Amino acid sequence: MEPDDEAFLADFRDLARIGATAGGGVERQAGSAADLEQRAWFADWLVHRGFSVHYDQVGNQYGLLEITPGRPWVLTGSHLDSQPLAGRFDGAYGVLASAHAADRLRREWAAGASSSALNLAVVNWFNEEGSRFKPSMMGSSALVGNLLLDVALETADSQGHTVREVLEPAGMLGDPVLDSPGLGVCERGGIASYAEIHIEQGRRLEKTGTEVGIVEGTWAAHKFEILVKGAQSHTGATVMADRRDALLGAAMLITRTRELADGAAAPLHASVSELYVEPNSPVTVAREVRMHFDFRSEQQAIVDAGVAELWAYAAEVETRTGVQIIQVAEHRWDRRDYARAGLDLAEECATSLGLSSARLLTLAGHDSTNMSQYVPTVMLFVPSREGISHNEAEDTGDIDAVQGVRMLTAVLRRLADDALG
Amino acid sequence: MEPDDEAFLADFRDLARIGATAGGGVERQAGSAADLEQRAWFADWLVHRGFSVHYDQVGNQYGLLEITPGRPWVLTGSHLDSQPLAGRFDGAYGVLASAHAADRLRREWAAGASSSALNLAVVNWFNEEGSRFKPSMMGSSALVGNLLLDVALETADSQGHTVREVLEPAGMLGDPVLDSPGLGVCERGGIASYAEIHIEQGRRLEKTGTEVGIVEGTWAAHKFEILVKGAQSHTGATVMADRRDALLGAAMLITRTRELADGAAAPLHASVSELYVEPNSPVTVAREVRMHFDFRSEQQAIVDAGVAELWAYAAEVETRTGVQIIQVAEHRWDRRDYARAGLDLAEECATSLGLSSARLLTLAGHDSTNMSQYVPTVMLFVPSREGISHNEAEDTGDIDAVQGVRMLTAVLRRLADDALG
Repeated sequence: MEPDDEAFLADFRDLARIGATAGGGVERQAGSAADLEQRAWFADWLVHRGFSVHYDQVGNQYGLLEITPGRPWVLTGSHLDSQPLAGRFDGAYGVLASAHAADRLRREWAAGASSSALNLAVVNWFNEEGSRFKPSMMGSSALVGNLLLDVALETADSQGHTVREVLEPAGMLGDPVLDSPGLGVCERGGIASYAEIHIEQGRRLEKTGTEVGIVEGTWAAHKFEILVKGAQSHTGATVMADRRDALLGAAMLITRTRELADGAAAPLHASVSELYVEPNSPVTVAREVRMHFDFRSEQQAIVDAGVAELWAYAAEVETRTGVQIIQVAEHRWDRRDYARAGLDLAEECATSLGLSSARLLTLAGHDSTNMSQYVPTVMLFVPSREGISHNEAEDTGDIDAVQGVRMLTAVLRRLADDALG
Repeated sequence: MEPDDEAFLADFRDLARIGATAGGGVERQAGSAADLEQRAWFADWLVHRGFSVHYDQVGNQYGLLEITPGRPWVLTGSHLDSQPLAGRFDGAYGVLASAHAADRLRREWAAGASSSALNLAVVNWFNEEGSRFKPSMMGSSALVGNLLLDVALETADSQGHTVREVLEPAGMLGDPVLDSPGLGVCERGGIASYAEIHIEQGRRLEKTGTEVGIVEGTWAAHKFEILVKGAQSHTGATVMADRRDALLGAAMLITRTRELADGAAAPLHASVSELYVEPNSPVTVAREVRMHFDFRSEQQAIVDAGVAELWAYAAEVETRTGVQIIQVAEHRWDRRDYARAGLDLAEECATSLGLSSARLLTLAGHDSTNMSQYVPTVMLFVPSREGISHNEAEDTGDIDAVQGVRMLTAVLRRLADDALG
């Protein structure tokens, strides 16, 4: 391993201490104390290497390397925020890999070994995970114009605290950093291309012994929130026929969601993982349940068919249980493909580094899913041990991790040469 | 209506202002600010009428009328604590009716119109509802020895606050007030009999136009808490076959619970109304669900059969979903009958007052369910409009309410004469 590789692993270990959990993972939900701590750590890291640090209006954190004033920017990054009781790699690996890759190029260019046609910026997107504040991919959605800034800032967590309330006192709400459709323009100019690296969160690379994944598309996703409205009554005294049990209605929808996934014509990932019960008392039938559904498939039509079947069943649940079922929010993205030129570029980089690569789809959404709508985008994966994700046991081997940083460095070098221009 | 009736209704309206909700109900969960406020209000009411106010070691609140020092006590009461978003009558009606009935007898005896062989005490049991602190009927369970005092005091709510922590600073933890198996003895002596009045929480009295219900028995109940253990993973990326979804396992148990109730050989009330999900994030499959089951029937065998079928199904759920299902707590009572002599006595009182009465069973548990194990107990019901219970819309008409107080007064007069001695 080279000194640069060792430096990356040492920094990654440092970062993983912030919000560390007893189970070997991290808990650093968006805007939490641990998230603010790691943002300060990251700002410090960037400043010490000559990056200038900025925040845009939705709290995305940037480290800028202005090489050729007036030219567009190559942007690279991921997110530091995590799920509750999460792994160390999801998002954080990509942010640190981006920073190390950019710093390597900075040193290369400073040494005169090569030059750059464009400027280079590293980004730590705000709230990719969406566990505390919905929707997920908030920072990149606001930047590309998929989410209104005011809606993002006024989003409240389950305790009623808004995004604005956590970011403003931390000094993490600023002005546009780079031009974008969602956050407006500034003097620095726009984004030419975007690159992100992430752990796979699946088993395909590991199973096939492939070192780098080149993402050619994102699964379609449809997420929505449903309110099941029943009526409070006594669990002991109320006769069964008189009940309108919101939790029963919710449970029927959850079991059907799994049946729909199991019976779909092509792979459909469908689940409910968040649910609030009112009044949530042991002896009072629930008057209301709010629940979040997540449907995903490679094919948009499979997602649509699954959701349609769920609503048909919801009508049946209403009739059978006397509850009322209404949708209160939704968030969706269609199947999206990454720019073909970026796939070819990444493949050439892998070959030149002697790394095996394969094209694959991402089942999870990423900030790159948003960016790919807006600019040519390269999305890379490194292997995940057993595909474990959103879990403290999530892991990626050291060799895979450092190879990923080298791969991203090579891709950024080409992007900074305006290879996708 | 007589002045005493008007006074009762005026006091009831006063009491209903404490913790009043916008929907016309109250929210006064055990140990909450509203509960402490109504306890202070009630202590004041008692003291102004010559009762001495005391608290035992589990926070039960007593108003004592010592008539014949050294003689046993007739105890009467119910509970002021409520469910979240509850009605005004559940429990509170019975406490205030008991206090008014006792005060009428006090005045009677002071005027020399009659005399009493025994002493008289009013009680406001701590935490009958069990919504904040489990189990329900906590204060009476501790008194009769069905629940260890230390277990009761160390019970924590979902925020981690214990019963001791809320009652001690309020000065509501004292010494034994009357002798009991669970809380020990004192100088005042023991309890001869117990009487309680409550709204029916069912429709039988209303349907048949009956003015007073005389409770001959309590349905059997079995409540238990289950932990469903799965594994955290990504709702988008994790293939369905790899998931161990705790919320799916929980939902299957909820739907089956309803099927068991619908298919039971005799009426079985079975439900889940309280459920906590971890981590409860929109994009992370639940690793753990804690849920509370409530099974009740007139026949113990029907409850037992339902619970056994649920566990058989739980084993199937474990196999099908990969979760683990374990019981972590339980609370149960068998079908219990009230003393026959008390039923006859109550019937005679109703007849003498010209009130129609009927014997019936209570589906809900009451503090009298505990007391009936220990001393001769009379349990009375007044009609509930549409049987609505644990709901802000809960209601009992004024006439029914004041007739109930007269009925309870008549019963207490007989009990104070040691009619069940």
